[in-house]
Amino acid sequence: MNKFIKLNEWSIIEEGFHPENNKVSESIFSIGNGYMGQRANFEERYSGNSLQGSYIGGVYYPDKTRVGWWKNGYPEYFAKIINSTNWIGIDIKIEGETFDLNNCTIHEFRRELNMQDGALLRSATASLSNGKKIKIESKRFVSLVEKDLGSIEYAVTPLNFNGIIEFEPYLDGGIINSDSNYDETFWIEIDKKATTKISYLQTQTRKTKFDVCVAMKCTLTEDGNLLNPETSIIENLNYVAYNIKAQAAQGKKLVLHKYVAVESSMHHKSNDLVSIAEKRVSGFFNKGFSTLFKAHSNAWHNKWQESDIKIGADLEAQQAIRYNIFQLYQTYTGDNETLNIGPKGFTGEKYGGVTYWDTEAYCLPFYMRTAKPNVARNLLKYRYNHLQKAQDNAQKLGFNHGAALFPMVTINGEECHNEWEITFEEIHRNGAIAYAIHNYIRYTGDTDYMIEYGLEVLIAISRFWEQRVNWSQSKQKYVLLGVTGPNEYENNVNNNWYTLKLIEWTLRYTIKQIESASTLKDFESIVSKTEFDYKEIDKWEDIISNIYFPTDENLQIFLQQDGFLDKELIPVSKLDTIERPIHEKWSWDRILRSCYIKQADVLQGIYMFEEEFDHNTIKRNFEFYEPLTVHESSLSPCIHSILASKIGMKEKAYEMYLRTARLDLDNINNDTDDGLHITSMGGTWMSIVEGFAGLRIEDDQLSFYPTIPDKWTYFEFIILFRGAKLEIRIEPKIIQIQNHSNVPINLLINNNINLLSPKSETIISLIENETVS
Amino acid sequence: MNKFIKLNEWSIIEEGFHPENNKVSESIFSIGNGYMGQRANFEERYSGNSLQGSYIGGVYYPDKTRVGWWKNGYPEYFAKIINSTNWIGIDIKIEGETFDLNNCTIHEFRRELNMQDGALLRSATASLSNGKKIKIESKRFVSLVEKDLGSIEYAVTPLNFNGIIEFEPYLDGGIINSDSNYDETFWIEIDKKATTKISYLQTQTRKTKFDVCVAMKCTLTEDGNLLNPETSIIENLNYVAYNIKAQAAQGKKLVLHKYVAVESSMHHKSNDLVSIAEKRVSGFFNKGFSTLFKAHSNAWHNKWQESDIKIGADLEAQQAIRYNIFQLYQTYTGDNETLNIGPKGFTGEKYGGVTYWDTEAYCLPFYMRTAKPNVARNLLKYRYNHLQKAQDNAQKLGFNHGAALFPMVTINGEECHNEWEITFEEIHRNGAIAYAIHNYIRYTGDTDYMIEYGLEVLIAISRFWEQRVNWSQSKQKYVLLGVTGPNEYENNVNNNWYTLKLIEWTLRYTIKQIESASTLKDFESIVSKTEFDYKEIDKWEDIISNIYFPTDENLQIFLQQDGFLDKELIPVSKLDTIERPIHEKWSWDRILRSCYIKQADVLQGIYMFEEEFDHNTIKRNFEFYEPLTVHESSLSPCIHSILASKIGMKEKAYEMYLRTARLDLDNINNDTDDGLHITSMGGTWMSIVEGFAGLRIEDDQLSFYPTIPDKWTYFEFIILFRGAKLEIRIEPKIIQIQNHSNVPINLLINNNINLLSPKSETIISLIENETVS
Repeated sequence: MNKFIKLNEWSIIEEGFHPENNKVSESIFSIGNGYMGQRANFEERYSGNSLQGSYIGGVYYPDKTRVGWWKNGYPEYFAKIINSTNWIGIDIKIEGETFDLNNCTIHEFRRELNMQDGALLRSATASLSNGKKIKIESKRFVSLVEKDLGSIEYAVTPLNFNGIIEFEPYLDGGIINSDSNYDETFWIEIDKKATTKISYLQTQTRKTKFDVCVAMKCTLTEDGNLLNPETSIIENLNYVAYNIKAQAAQGKKLVLHKYVAVESSMHHKSNDLVSIAEKRVSGFFNKGFSTLFKAHSNAWHNKWQESDIKIGADLEAQQAIRYNIFQLYQTYTGDNETLNIGPKGFTGEKYGGVTYWDTEAYCLPFYMRTAKPNVARNLLKYRYNHLQKAQDNAQKLGFNHGAALFPMVTINGEECHNEWEITFEEIHRNGAIAYAIHNYIRYTGDTDYMIEYGLEVLIAISRFWEQRVNWSQSKQKYVLLGVTGPNEYENNVNNNWYTLKLIEWTLRYTIKQIESASTLKDFESIVSKTEFDYKEIDKWEDIISNIYFPTDENLQIFLQQDGFLDKELIPVSKLDTIERPIHEKWSWDRILRSCYIKQADVLQGIYMFEEEFDHNTIKRNFEFYEPLTVHESSLSPCIHSILASKIGMKEKAYEMYLRTARLDLDNINNDTDDGLHITSMGGTWMSIVEGFAGLRIEDDQLSFYPTIPDKWTYFEFIILFRGAKLEIRIEPKIIQIQNHSNVPINLLINNNINLLSPKSETIISLIENETVS
Repeated sequence: MNKFIKLNEWSIIEEGFHPENNKVSESIFSIGNGYMGQRANFEERYSGNSLQGSYIGGVYYPDKTRVGWWKNGYPEYFAKIINSTNWIGIDIKIEGETFDLNNCTIHEFRRELNMQDGALLRSATASLSNGKKIKIESKRFVSLVEKDLGSIEYAVTPLNFNGIIEFEPYLDGGIINSDSNYDETFWIEIDKKATTKISYLQTQTRKTKFDVCVAMKCTLTEDGNLLNPETSIIENLNYVAYNIKAQAAQGKKLVLHKYVAVESSMHHKSNDLVSIAEKRVSGFFNKGFSTLFKAHSNAWHNKWQESDIKIGADLEAQQAIRYNIFQLYQTYTGDNETLNIGPKGFTGEKYGGVTYWDTEAYCLPFYMRTAKPNVARNLLKYRYNHLQKAQDNAQKLGFNHGAALFPMVTINGEECHNEWEITFEEIHRNGAIAYAIHNYIRYTGDTDYMIEYGLEVLIAISRFWEQRVNWSQSKQKYVLLGVTGPNEYENNVNNNWYTLKLIEWTLRYTIKQIESASTLKDFESIVSKTEFDYKEIDKWEDIISNIYFPTDENLQIFLQQDGFLDKELIPVSKLDTIERPIHEKWSWDRILRSCYIKQADVLQGIYMFEEEFDHNTIKRNFEFYEPLTVHESSLSPCIHSILASKIGMKEKAYEMYLRTARLDLDNINNDTDDGLHITSMGGTWMSIVEGFAGLRIEDDQLSFYPTIPDKWTYFEFIILFRGAKLEIRIEPKIIQIQNHSNVPINLLINNNINLLSPKSETIISLIENETVS
């Protein structure tokens, strides 16, 4: 944990340079537009600690699997979204000396991520070792309007001299892929041209043969007047640049504008990329920086109109929720159904892949309530499109009859993970995928999705569960051996309660869906396609009736797994802080043997199926497990915040909210340098909307159980619900709801029904026996 | 499984060329002398399937660890005994065409490993694509007398032509290390010289900086007459050779003798290696091939005098036991206390390291009964010498107060293994190391070892156990969480019975040893060195009294671990053969969830502590576990054979004997291509001596419970026991014992005591109420 970010309502601000935190800042100040993304690397050379990253959605490399000891069933490769051509680079020379903040005396430094406008701003005043003092100012964005556009305004002002300043804007394809398993390079050069007008560089990934062409065009101005300085071109392997030598006058600002068009074979034919990139960059250039930026910032303003959450009297909480929403929309906009949400978005290479169960469990709830209906549907269809590969994967592991095991990590539907205890055992992911179908249809009412796509997935997952449990002669129950739950600080356990709960639920839900669907005419084609036999239902019902759930009668709690109570149960609060985080301080075996929980496990199940448990059951389990939880997964605090809100533990809910919301801003888990925790940001949003506001769907109706942290005077958010757009404001004593749509909505507030007419507003008291109208 | 080796009493013979089995044959026909070893690669070029291997004891390379996901506590590197300079190479050209069996028509091919003489022989008749037909004959050995000597007699006879035959003997340091984690080369060239007299090549390992210098000298003769043919020298990077062009006459045999001296910085200063190698090879050359070979084969004849086991009327069993003994003595002679016994000896690079718990559990029993007393003592001291590193290792994992966790795999005492479920969890190895001290002292009577070295090791291991168990509030017992037993087809289990048994036993034994030692004057220095406190004994006694052992009351068996009976118990005999071996055919998760056992686990404990269990208990456990055991570890069949002998299951004992004895000869586990299973060869010897002959130590006396497989007319072996050399012959009805020493020995035969006078022989009937005198 390291708090160096200034509090501000709309901006993330770093004042003073913190080289020791530079990689953290590079992550935090990342920009993106769902199509591509860019870490906050400096434009000019920087010889200090840095992780370069320019990413393009969907452009991946299947890196050869690296393991110590091969196990049958491991995938051959790990697909990674990879660092590609560096398009931000602008080398600066001052009277012949390369400007590098690592070798300067820095007088002033400021970085700002303006979330309202979607802009990354930076300024610095520094003296070089040749004594020259300069001020630089840069402004950078990747456009929300023109997705292939990245642009930079880079200004240099000589403060104590007149002399030669050289600008060398470049495109560099000879970049490092820091997450390469065997230190291989992933890219080869295909084509390039450097000219003083438009330059371009086309590179291609090995194996996957994705082509990326970046074209650039630049201008240099002084006081808004175009200069025509001495210019030379540079071409090296994987590199195009040109050098602009300008005569600078003390106190006069020289401004370079760099426009780039980033095109890839994800969207165009490889052969057309050069001409498209050249044409696009010309167009950008003709519009000019101000016009392009204006359109982009307008788009962000519109986005905020739809997605903002306002919090009264708590700047720390306010800044953080906006940051989470901002990064979510920088990562995934839902425009392209082949894309998904990587755990690090476009802010780092770590963890590769793009799709974990995070998408279903933490991101879907956000997008289905804030974005156009097709966005959430696309997220579900992404899995449907991968069903065959999930079946192939299960078959490879010894399952049959169309059983599906969806991958732990994937880009194209194939499993990429290669740790047996995760890859083969963390099978609860299958349950999250089944549950997401339910969650989506329950919220959106899009029942067509079930017969079109959902049911096939449910049948395949149910078949997997059927084969994955086995009958224990000893227990006279169906048991589940050798699994890893969401708490990855336990591996290869028997009878993980959460996974068993998912199994029981999936089978029940699937049977119910089959029964409902069986009267529909499209059902026959599903039966024939899946070779479904009604006898399968008998077996599933037998499993439902005889499934084993580990519990402790004494404590009256569900047991995370068999044998959990053999551990020494010492609450986290008694751990010395020097032992934390345990994943850095302890050996792996010590972690495994300990009682410490990385993220919600039993509580994840209670969160998902809360309607099955009474208040006291939830409270007992929460009070047993939360004190043992170290929250060292980014996905942990949000679920705990929601449950704490539910059971009235307001302080714990607020503590957990701040932890999820400020995870990256305050580098709480000490790993933000690798990139941001994008998927958990959906969880942050859930902590407010499901947690504090208590949003649920009950009897097909929207309901709220509002609470509010003591510190807050109010909070406001917008949700989309079945054609309606609702603006909700919660204050300590009232909830105010505006229906901006033409759709009437039935609302339950603390179990009382309210009809919200079209284009109307209602205010309801949250204090018993008090009425507001 | 692939039986292509001919049965023969003293030789291993392959007739006809089996290119598909070439790597298997290269392993099987390996030669070595404890100092170095050599796979049976061809001298001439071979472009077919081959794994090159020339190994030197103790010369290792710390290869950078390769894992998919780093876990805290992993070692930085994996130390490997590595392929070094190829000294056997002799390229042959026939009228300009390179002779390569992969490109010839082969008319006749024969390989023989003569175990009596310690010689590898090969002959082949082949036609090259230029139509020339030749016969080659080679004889190779590495000397048991001059440990640094390797020599080859290589003959070529032109069968259908007169013409030019070129011989190009070489030394090649540019070899491949097939087990390199990152495809790095481990060696660099230091020095070389090629001359027509002596040539040499000195190479050095990166990082560890071991120097190896090999010098060679060759002669060419026809009918015993030295030729003086046209000769040229060749020097390339990492390569010295010379080319000898000889005019060959049809039917006349040309014979090249190649002598090499292999010197390393294990034994000499690096700067002296060249001169030593040159001097040594001159000496070898002066003695000549026949003289050198004679001395070597005499040494083997002497070895056999001491170590042979003879079996009547079962050639398959006879050949196999000799093969096992031969390979054990080729790998380790006990001369050097820094060396140990690698699982693949000098026959392959796989598994790296050299010391596993195999040494204590499977090799020590062989060496302590057949070799000079210091050999077994050296094996134990090897661990004593690594005690500090074992303590460092435990500390790294979070243990303290001098607790020791010996490594799973090591060369220099540091852990090399890097799979968490093995490295951190397969801790029963500590128990095998403690038990070996007991086993050694019990057999040899060398009680001095305890106070000199043993006790410190026992205290350190006991401290590890003390900290590794924890009190279960739920069970009101000490439990053992997160371990892997010898059955590596289960990982991260709770309460592995075998490991718990070792813990209880170690603590008991250590307390007893401390009590015995406490009167000795050297004990005080141990107390002070280890900071031992008598209060530790209280804690250990508490653990002994309250340790948990998983058992099943119904079946009356010990449970391999908690939850074992939740599995589906289907005996191996019901598995389709196409599913076997499961480690090749099944995914890892399927193996883990299955009931199948890789090697003795509960039964390993019953084997070690059999005096604690009655006949029926042993039988019940054997009959429960053996049918679930797939014996896919080389270490499995021997223990089962011994136990089967003990409980009178003669057929099972014989089946298991053949399986352990012929494991490599018949490539039973389908992995002999990587190298031989050297350590399990000690187990083969144990199957006969502890199994069929039933050797035990009871009340400090040697005892036998003889049985004999139905097929055998007799078997004979020699053991050393406390200064006595005993020759034992067992026939179906009698046991005959010759005492070749001047020491009188008390012997128990089936519980009846017999005094065996010095230099005497006794014959005892094995049939009740029959007497032989």
